[in-house]
Amino acid sequence: MTQYMDVHHGMQGVTPDQIREAHQADLAIEKEEGVHFKQAWADPDSGTVYCLSEAPSAEAVQRIHERAGHPADEIHPVPITV
Amino acid sequence: MTQYMDVHHGMQGVTPDQIREAHQADLAIEKEEGVHFKQAWADPDSGTVYCLSEAPSAEAVQRIHERAGHPADEIHPVPITV
Repeated sequence: MTQYMDVHHGMQGVTPDQIREAHQADLAIEKEEGVHFKQAWADPDSGTVYCLSEAPSAEAVQRIHERAGHPADEIHPVPITV
Repeated sequence: MTQYMDVHHGMQGVTPDQIREAHQADLAIEKEEGVHFKQAWADPDSGTVYCLSEAPSAEAVQRIHERAGHPADEIHPVPITV
């Protein structure tokens, strides 16, 4: 399993409730791809959302995000953590 | 205090030791600006590094990163966390 940071752009004005709902939608189906979404952070002003996950591949992360209705714009493996 | 996600580009080939040293350099002086760098994640292939901090302002985050020798390319407040 590798950690991934994925990034969503264009989410200006996103609310805490919307982020919570989106995260819940991911959590509800993530096991089907062996993914776990650990945390997410949002900047409503610039419309940027960052999601940290553990997953078998970037494609698995994207499949869950797509099925949950919010495909990521970037997905980076982040093998180094401090 | 607000949480910030800052992003560094162009760090292709960065190693775990370099990330650890950079993080330690931030931690050594962060209190002088009331900042705390909580975690960092790096993708050596794309050369992207993400740092999560708590700080009084984006400028305070940047002042520490600059003094430690690695100014950020983007600094986003992330008031929403799940």
